[in-house]
Amino acid sequence: MKIRVFVSLKDGVLDPQGKAVEHALHSLGFKGASDVRISRVVDLHVKADNAEEAKAKGAEMARALLANEVIEDFHVEVAG
Amino acid sequence: MKIRVFVSLKDGVLDPQGKAVEHALHSLGFKGASDVRISRVVDLHVKADNAEEAKAKGAEMARALLANEVIEDFHVEVAG
Repeated sequence: MKIRVFVSLKDGVLDPQGKAVEHALHSLGFKGASDVRISRVVDLHVKADNAEEAKAKGAEMARALLANEVIEDFHVEVAG
Repeated sequence: MKIRVFVSLKDGVLDPQGKAVEHALHSLGFKGASDVRISRVVDLHVKADNAEEAKAKGAEMARALLANEVIEDFHVEVAG
């Protein structure tokens, strides 16, 4: 079963990569760009009998490896 | 207006980061994890009068900076 884990920085946590991209966009003439935040998406297949189990496995993987819960939030979607 | 740019590797392009995560998941006991692919999501605000203009600006930014179209695909969503 295919799942997608979104991992994004918590609100209020500084995003240096986003800031760098924002500056680069301004340099390229995109003056209206602001509040740039960069997140990760992890797409993967898991062995699961149903969507609920797949989602639970995704959350377990996120807690164990994919997300740093001190500074990041995550959510899991089942793609089918 | 808030937009979201998804940037993912084209099918067939090797994803070393995804492979590394896959191995790490296996090491942690998640033996069923496979086909791990990692993508980027760039959330940002743009100045635009309507959703269509916002989307067009997002695509322009993706082509100029956010995505490497040789190996990556992107798509833009308007979040509101």
